[in-house]
Amino acid sequence: MTITARKIAEHLQASLAGNADAGDTIIDRLAPLDQAGPGDVSFLAADKYLKSLPDCRASALLLKESHLGDAPSTAAVVVVSDPYLAYARISHLFSQEPAPAKAIHSSAIIESGVQLGEGVSIGAHTLIESGTILGDGSVIGPGSVIGARVRIGANTVLKANVTVHHDVVIGDQCMIHSGAVIGGDGFGFAPSSAGWVKIAQLGRVIVGNRVEIGSNTTIDRGAIADTVIEDGVIIDNLSMLAHNVRIGRGTAMAAQVGIAGSTRIGAHCILGGQAGFAGHLDIADGSHFTGQAMVTKGTTESGAYSSGWPIQPAREWRRTVARLRQLDKLEARLKALEHRLDSPDTEQTPKKEDSE
Amino acid sequence: MTITARKIAEHLQASLAGNADAGDTIIDRLAPLDQAGPGDVSFLAADKYLKSLPDCRASALLLKESHLGDAPSTAAVVVVSDPYLAYARISHLFSQEPAPAKAIHSSAIIESGVQLGEGVSIGAHTLIESGTILGDGSVIGPGSVIGARVRIGANTVLKANVTVHHDVVIGDQCMIHSGAVIGGDGFGFAPSSAGWVKIAQLGRVIVGNRVEIGSNTTIDRGAIADTVIEDGVIIDNLSMLAHNVRIGRGTAMAAQVGIAGSTRIGAHCILGGQAGFAGHLDIADGSHFTGQAMVTKGTTESGAYSSGWPIQPAREWRRTVARLRQLDKLEARLKALEHRLDSPDTEQTPKKEDSE
Amino acid sequence: MTITARKIAEHLQASLAGNADAGDTIIDRLAPLDQAGPGDVSFLAADKYLKSLPDCRASALLLKESHLGDAPSTAAVVVVSDPYLAYARISHLFSQEPAPAKAIHSSAIIESGVQLGEGVSIGAHTLIESGTILGDGSVIGPGSVIGARVRIGANTVLKANVTVHHDVVIGDQCMIHSGAVIGGDGFGFAPSSAGWVKIAQLGRVIVGNRVEIGSNTTIDRGAIADTVIEDGVIIDNLSMLAHNVRIGRGTAMAAQVGIAGSTRIGAHCILGGQAGFAGHLDIADGSHFTGQAMVTKGTTESGAYSSGWPIQPAREWRRTVARLRQLDKLEARLKALEHRLDSPDTEQTPKKEDSE
Repeated sequence: MTITARKIAEHLQASLAGNADAGDTIIDRLAPLDQAGPGDVSFLAADKYLKSLPDCRASALLLKESHLGDAPSTAAVVVVSDPYLAYARISHLFSQEPAPAKAIHSSAIIESGVQLGEGVSIGAHTLIESGTILGDGSVIGPGSVIGARVRIGANTVLKANVTVHHDVVIGDQCMIHSGAVIGGDGFGFAPSSAGWVKIAQLGRVIVGNRVEIGSNTTIDRGAIADTVIEDGVIIDNLSMLAHNVRIGRGTAMAAQVGIAGSTRIGAHCILGGQAGFAGHLDIADGSHFTGQAMVTKGTTESGAYSSGWPIQPAREWRRTVARLRQLDKLEARLKALEHRLDSPDTEQTPKKEDSE
Repeated sequence: MTITARKIAEHLQASLAGNADAGDTIIDRLAPLDQAGPGDVSFLAADKYLKSLPDCRASALLLKESHLGDAPSTAAVVVVSDPYLAYARISHLFSQEPAPAKAIHSSAIIESGVQLGEGVSIGAHTLIESGTILGDGSVIGPGSVIGARVRIGANTVLKANVTVHHDVVIGDQCMIHSGAVIGGDGFGFAPSSAGWVKIAQLGRVIVGNRVEIGSNTTIDRGAIADTVIEDGVIIDNLSMLAHNVRIGRGTAMAAQVGIAGSTRIGAHCILGGQAGFAGHLDIADGSHFTGQAMVTKGTTESGAYSSGWPIQPAREWRRTVARLRQLDKLEARLKALEHRLDSPDTEQTPKKEDSE
Repeated sequence: MTITARKIAEHLQASLAGNADAGDTIIDRLAPLDQAGPGDVSFLAADKYLKSLPDCRASALLLKESHLGDAPSTAAVVVVSDPYLAYARISHLFSQEPAPAKAIHSSAIIESGVQLGEGVSIGAHTLIESGTILGDGSVIGPGSVIGARVRIGANTVLKANVTVHHDVVIGDQCMIHSGAVIGGDGFGFAPSSAGWVKIAQLGRVIVGNRVEIGSNTTIDRGAIADTVIEDGVIIDNLSMLAHNVRIGRGTAMAAQVGIAGSTRIGAHCILGGQAGFAGHLDIADGSHFTGQAMVTKGTTESGAYSSGWPIQPAREWRRTVARLRQLDKLEARLKALEHRLDSPDTEQTPKKEDSE
């Protein structure tokens, strides 16, 4: 695929700077600044890379106006206010992913009462159960199973081997990656003398618009009320959202995050990879959690939260663990010293019993 | 779906209290106490919610006898000894999940020598390999792959896209959620000068009766002996049970738990989400672990075990990490002070070299 | 299946010791030393099991020459330099796993322009998209979806319900377990005033030779450049490799490991279960990490690294957490004492304000 710099500028509704015939520059690849060469378009993702700019050999560059002076004169420059965002926008022009077929594969099984929008694509070996509604331009990838009475919005894409259980609602322009399971039973059981008694999970999963859900991620249906993912949420792979969780608008979750039942995550939060949230918490809008954070209480204000202990060489770590377990003793020794200094006349009397 | 309060009482083998024609009350929904309205049945899950009871607008309530006096006079009351358990039992009456077809889908591929029980349901795009036995009333969900010589018990349900590998044995009344993989190879390799040499995993996975296995959970087959899940175990999503693990009867595992090879978890344990267990451990019956617990040694008695560091604001956390790494120095300073106080005549001599 | 001790020795290119007709010993099972009986072959995995050797009832044993004197006289002994490695090599002789069909199932859908090597096996309900190349002897398990222009090497085996997205390259003799997703989109989004803007993931996943990838593991494609798994890497279940990660030759990763974007893991590393790696790190060859390690900085030399806090009884743990949060105060108190001892004349003046 090739495209001119002019087309790129038009795509971004941006203006072209650089040499006179810059617009005719032929681009056939997108590349990082330090690896770009002739035929490539690149971008200055952050000011810290500015020093590499003069030597960049890309044929076209996405730059802020203020960096125009640093660009090599050989490059066509597309002037944008946010080069990283512009990169995101043009990246799709270079995708090699085959376009959806806008057809129903002959091996797809579509039960009665399914409503198909315009231009839907339904892949091989799929099953769409009865009463389900697929929006215009939606894509059901091969091997996917869509339960009864599911609603999937316009231009929403399910990749391969996705499972969506009955009565789940998914909005427009979502992308659900391969192996994800949406609407499986929440983990609800009542204890009894005869063991765990399963509680039917009567709620649904409601997914808003422009939501991304990663590969092999699981989102359980609600116990009585619904599990809710608001608009614009992005969720990475292998994450777990339990029943009745609610994720606020625009929140981003890295991979392998786990959120226990009924916890509500606010809007515009950032959840680091492998972070774990206990159940029934309320997390304030704009809370950021670093990776592996152990979240056992809610937050009431935005800000950065962390926990956990970064690696040390194993020998040092073992010593730290040992000391940690002796903190009580350490405090007791300190208290004893304080006492001796506050009672100078009895100083000679108390004897250390254990100096370790 | 609608049901009378009388039918609910009959289902629970419980008696009805409340107004004279309480039994005729029509119920069409199950709802939490604070959200219930006319047409709903609700329940008092725990005494702490008692104060909401008088204002509850539910048409029917599951209550202990001792709470009868607090119920609004308008509600039909079903008197039960354990309302939460009664809720679990009636919840299934309100499920909207389509019933299994009790039929074999035309796209299912069933190899030779498969034995099918009475009333089995086999979904679309499934494969049942040769020599497998499916118990009466068992359900193989769409997209599932069942290997050779597998045995699946009566009324066991596999949801969609489940994989069960050859020779696995699954008991009666189990539920295995979508995307789970049972009987994949254990992670066994011998080091050699030419790299890792794979060890064939010759054992099976043996799953007892009334076991629940969550979406996208993986349970590996044994290396030589079997991996064993005893009766009544419940396992949430995205958990990992390695080869030769044994889980005792009635144990509950929250999501994303990992158990390394050959570890034996006792009966009636509770494993919090994201807990991790090293290999070759013995965990005593009745051990409870909080979320993210790092279990590197076995336990010899029942009780609650914890580890991990709950979140702090990131700035405080960084300070704590720094202090933690200085624990050795802190102890050394304390020891020096103790020494000075024990040797008062040399008090002036030693000088602090580093006060930080 | 039965095999003679002679055939086992031949398979290992090893010599036989023991009684004269040892080679004719009939073996039909592989068993651990303490459970082996007549008809079994066993092995001494490590010297610490030596004391069980004289009582072992196995019909055949894999032993080092130095242990010949400890073997029961009834056993046929195959003399090997590394019994555990020999066990790995012969384990495959005892596998009950059905052999691949070396055929294309009638329900498989193979798009145009697919190149099939000699003796490929393609399972039921699979999809092979256009332009894909399958090497000689490769196996595509049932329910698997292989995207467009994928290359899969000779004798590589994909189990069931595997998803491989477009343009991924997988080498020879790999094994990819059920439910794995290779080449899903990396988690790349640019923030904008209108929310997250998805960045097309233009890179591929390149998997070397003799790589094992566990069940339900996900490996994302690169953003611009490729995600790379070098030769001989072994990866357990439910792990997550983000975009542009690179894993060096021979590295082993236990289950549920997460590696954030662009991190490079060296060769011959060992990553414990549930370990988490931040993005953009460089990890030195031969680095070993214990389970749940929190890796927020790179390593520059080989060796063992650890973090995390092993379980304690919950009551002790709560006290440790409380103390941990008071480390600042503890240090302040210690400093105050040091100050008092260094300024003996002012000793009486300062008063403790808070002894707790």
